[in-house]
Amino acid sequence: MKIGIIGYGNLGRGIECAIKQNADMELAAVFTRRNPSDVKILTEGVPVYPVDEIEKMEGKLDVVVLCGGSATDLPRQTPVYAKYFNVIDSFDTHARIPEHFEQVDAAAKEGGHVALISCGWDPGMFSLNRLYANAILPEGNDYTFWGKGVSQGHSDAIRRVEGVKDGKQYTIPVEEALKEVRSGSNPQLSTRQKHIRECFVVPEEGADLAKIEETIKNMPNYFADYDTTVHFISEDELKRDHSGIPHGGFVFRTGVTGWDKENKHVIEYSLKLDSNPEFTASVLLAFARAVNRLHQEGQTGCKTVFDIAPAYLSPKSGEELRKHLL
Amino acid sequence: MKIGIIGYGNLGRGIECAIKQNADMELAAVFTRRNPSDVKILTEGVPVYPVDEIEKMEGKLDVVVLCGGSATDLPRQTPVYAKYFNVIDSFDTHARIPEHFEQVDAAAKEGGHVALISCGWDPGMFSLNRLYANAILPEGNDYTFWGKGVSQGHSDAIRRVEGVKDGKQYTIPVEEALKEVRSGSNPQLSTRQKHIRECFVVPEEGADLAKIEETIKNMPNYFADYDTTVHFISEDELKRDHSGIPHGGFVFRTGVTGWDKENKHVIEYSLKLDSNPEFTASVLLAFARAVNRLHQEGQTGCKTVFDIAPAYLSPKSGEELRKHLL
Repeated sequence: MKIGIIGYGNLGRGIECAIKQNADMELAAVFTRRNPSDVKILTEGVPVYPVDEIEKMEGKLDVVVLCGGSATDLPRQTPVYAKYFNVIDSFDTHARIPEHFEQVDAAAKEGGHVALISCGWDPGMFSLNRLYANAILPEGNDYTFWGKGVSQGHSDAIRRVEGVKDGKQYTIPVEEALKEVRSGSNPQLSTRQKHIRECFVVPEEGADLAKIEETIKNMPNYFADYDTTVHFISEDELKRDHSGIPHGGFVFRTGVTGWDKENKHVIEYSLKLDSNPEFTASVLLAFARAVNRLHQEGQTGCKTVFDIAPAYLSPKSGEELRKHLL
Repeated sequence: MKIGIIGYGNLGRGIECAIKQNADMELAAVFTRRNPSDVKILTEGVPVYPVDEIEKMEGKLDVVVLCGGSATDLPRQTPVYAKYFNVIDSFDTHARIPEHFEQVDAAAKEGGHVALISCGWDPGMFSLNRLYANAILPEGNDYTFWGKGVSQGHSDAIRRVEGVKDGKQYTIPVEEALKEVRSGSNPQLSTRQKHIRECFVVPEEGADLAKIEETIKNMPNYFADYDTTVHFISEDELKRDHSGIPHGGFVFRTGVTGWDKENKHVIEYSLKLDSNPEFTASVLLAFARAVNRLHQEGQTGCKTVFDIAPAYLSPKSGEELRKHLL
């Protein structure tokens, strides 16, 4: 499978790394909005092109992985490129998924291609676990926790506060809440009871630390509804201790079975990830394999992780899978 | 969907209970090898027939759930009934799955039906998690732990020991081993390091307790390779404290990503089940919905959980799923 990457940030680099781990794939080209000569990729001998020239590669790539952001890049890019290529994206604005689906579906059908949107771990693997667990236990409750991990949106919010030079925010599930859910007691949990927010802030020289802390803790939507802690650290400490991009989380469904609903069950799925973008990239590539296969079977249009039979994700044959993994 | 049940033991009764929780399904008939008048089911107004007469129901059932055992019932039954009906079974003899698949596939194709074998939680949901996690993290290690739960095979083995009137065996994962796997350290674990076996034994009057304990602890394959504890209890205590059929377990994959494999990831899926047969039944019914849909699409032959796109398991439309669960 010849893979193309559009956008060479953390996710694009993650795709490049993951291709090395999949013997049936090769990186064929990287496309960038920057000046290609300014983009140094890790794989030797692979060309970097301006993204405007991507249409010239029509017919030469099996799947193109779109590595832009969900706010402005993907809503515009995925429908455009689905006309020319099989594509996959990690569009994660949950509320706008139906709209994105319609646009990509129309474009992919017009071009005779397969597109898969909203792939990764949430949306993605977490969604799959919600679906399986809901189908198995129709009477029950869903719980999703995120973290411990870096929230890009909350880190950006900190950095916009006056007097803040740099900062990073970790979302952390409350251990007590996890325990209560795991017990099968079906607790009602408030926003505050589910997650803690921990901030590491590098202040500008002479900044009013008390004011920074107060501003962060009272920021509506981002922090006001949470127990938030603020630590002031040096630029060196931030670089040394907080330059990773870990993440993860938990998806639970607890439910009942039996003639009188007398038996309880707990289904739990969790991820602990050293690198959010690299794990997301690994999920995208497994589904890229499925996209290629569906296209070879003559399918077209937009899909999500819900539409993909799991066997399509694996390089192994059905026979091998039944023998070794079933 | 009209559902038929063959075999009315714990699993058959679990199917009956789960049908009540799925508004798009109804129990149409139960088939038994016993005298039908001796079989009292929970649902009012549903007929119980001798299993020999099941062929008369051809065309009247959407999916038949086979609730027999894997040792002798299913290898014989599933290929026979796949000729007349869409069927689903929970065949769990891992080593014989390829052979069972071939036989059921031929029969289902001959009859123009869809059959799904080896469904439940292991094989079943655990297999799915192994497959997804292996496709995502090609370089890594798999770990499966079972329990805490009742092992039927080990309980049977205890009951065959001289001087034992009744008994129950719990398989328990070793907490330390779970912790080590969760840390991402990729430990090599021996059989003994992974699971403990705990036995509750009701001795016959005047039996040699020391000899029973020694016989159990040294039983090859079943107990000799494990740290096994034996508790002697009364018949009343066994009935009071150990009449449930709980089970569960953990599936892990730990792996690495990154250009130099510098980042670690842990994927964990776990189940904590008050009733093993009722949960298995709930999984079977969700997949029965998929079997019915595939048949309506004109597909035939044998499938496994690997071949089923998750959306087929849910009564919700693709649009609803994308809006609410993705």
